Amino acid sequence: MADIFELPIKVLFQHCDPAGIVFYPRYFEMVNQTVEEWHELGLDYSFARMHSEDRRGVPTVSIGAEFSAPSRLGDVLTWRLELIRLGRTSAHLRVTALAGDELRMVATPVLVCLDMDSGRPVPWADGVRAAMSKYLAAQ
Amino acid sequence: MADIFELPIKVLFQHCDPAGIVFYPRYFEMVNQTVEEWHELGLDYSFARMHSEDRRGVPTVSIGAEFSAPSRLGDVLTWRLELIRLGRTSAHLRVTALAGDELRMVATPVLVCLDMDSGRPVPWADGVRAAMSKYLAAQ
Amino acid sequence: MADIFELPIKVLFQHCDPAGIVFYPRYFEMVNQTVEEWHELGLDYSFARMHSEDRRGVPTVSIGAEFSAPSRLGDVLTWRLELIRLGRTSAHLRVTALAGDELRMVATPVLVCLDMDSGRPVPWADGVRAAMSKYLAAQ
Amino acid sequence: MADIFELPIKVLFQHCDPAGIVFYPRYFEMVNQTVEEWHELGLDYSFARMHSEDRRGVPTVSIGAEFSAPSRLGDVLTWRLELIRLGRTSAHLRVTALAGDELRMVATPVLVCLDMDSGRPVPWADGVRAAMSKYLAAQ
Repeated sequence: MADIFELPIKVLFQHCDPAGIVFYPRYFEMVNQTVEEWHELGLDYSFARMHSEDRRGVPTVSIGAEFSAPSRLGDVLTWRLELIRLGRTSAHLRVTALAGDELRMVATPVLVCLDMDSGRPVPWADGVRAAMSKYLAAQ
Repeated sequence: MADIFELPIKVLFQHCDPAGIVFYPRYFEMVNQTVEEWHELGLDYSFARMHSEDRRGVPTVSIGAEFSAPSRLGDVLTWRLELIRLGRTSAHLRVTALAGDELRMVATPVLVCLDMDSGRPVPWADGVRAAMSKYLAAQ
Repeated sequence: MADIFELPIKVLFQHCDPAGIVFYPRYFEMVNQTVEEWHELGLDYSFARMHSEDRRGVPTVSIGAEFSAPSRLGDVLTWRLELIRLGRTSAHLRVTALAGDELRMVATPVLVCLDMDSGRPVPWADGVRAAMSKYLAAQ
Repeated sequence: MADIFELPIKVLFQHCDPAGIVFYPRYFEMVNQTVEEWHELGLDYSFARMHSEDRRGVPTVSIGAEFSAPSRLGDVLTWRLELIRLGRTSAHLRVTALAGDELRMVATPVLVCLDMDSGRPVPWADGVRAAMSKYLAAQ
């Protein structure tokens, strides 16, 4: 059975727009935070270490998102991350936000492992690949 | 021939991440700005009027995006907006960012016309629909 | 002895600028988050309830800040909030960010209790004032 | 007579909070944008050149701000920048936002010229100092 990474994020004043709901670019900050905390807490490979020591990055090269229902100030969202496909230099994720049982949004970011000095994709390091594999969802 | 709405946006320090390139949630703020200025300058229907006087909103219900090449501090991006499909209560857009001739990103937001008091989709007002139609791309 | 409210916030990728340190407007989002969580967790008066049910807000009317040392990706900051002066319609705060023992920034926001319908300052509700008083620092 | 740098910035949806007014951390993004455009347009020394070629930065080491009146969606703010004091390695600014004749906010950032490799303050380059001096307000 695949692992699923979960992260709670509270909807704060700074996330909300004049309509009183989460402004959607702020949702993408939460998606990014989920990916970042997955690296640190789920893969034991913090962004700080990745960027500073290994000079690697994981830019998002594409993303799709559906916003099913609005989120409001004070809602606590459960963000869930699953790995859909793991390529040699890429990772296809599904990141979902729930408030209780209600789906609020689903995003499908594709990350690429990048060498920051050359600006080119490189294969995932073996340890990172092994750690990621535990989150690979059954097809 | 369909109209295309264009808006220049300079990449500022606040848009860039530790890798020195635009942080992708900031791109979505630029997409939103393009949609907002299209309403004000292209459709003669400002967000201020829409929200305050007419109690309407145009939330994004889904979006896809591909990031073709990174943008850096000081780049001036030309944002182009075309209307792909105009439904009774929805609008499918294609929003593209170019630096000179180089494609940086393309996004495909779907907006819905919402009555802010009921929280329900409502048909576009006739004047808004007529103004939008000029931007409808040939299929 | 006055209570001090504390909140840990991790420095994320989204907070950092091309120099690799926290972009200072993001620090103010953290100050605002500290004030917001103080209301919810320290005063038992959430922003959601304040804004939606009571139609009150607590806009910041002035603020000073000193940035003593930079914060980097992955730093966990301890935000501390003390109440310096409690007026009839205002509250003078001191909000400090520490990384371990090292001071990173101190901010001194002044909040005003606002009636959102009239747009005018109003006295703190008795319960809110009583809850706030526990955080009043000795002079 | 000292020069005053001016920059118009429109208040967008992304700047506004659930109370329908500019969220104050967003004001600081506008302050930063004013400082950044002053460098590029007023001093002919773009942030891109400063950071990439010269490995210099101008972090804000302290700032004070007063928010005199709220700004709303669609307001066009005129940001004015004056230089109050020019030190060997620092610059004290006054940055003001007006909507027509109405003052909306005033901020007093202090910048330091930093060598990004050593992390230490360094004197302003002669050309930058000369360009800045034109904006030095009479005492």
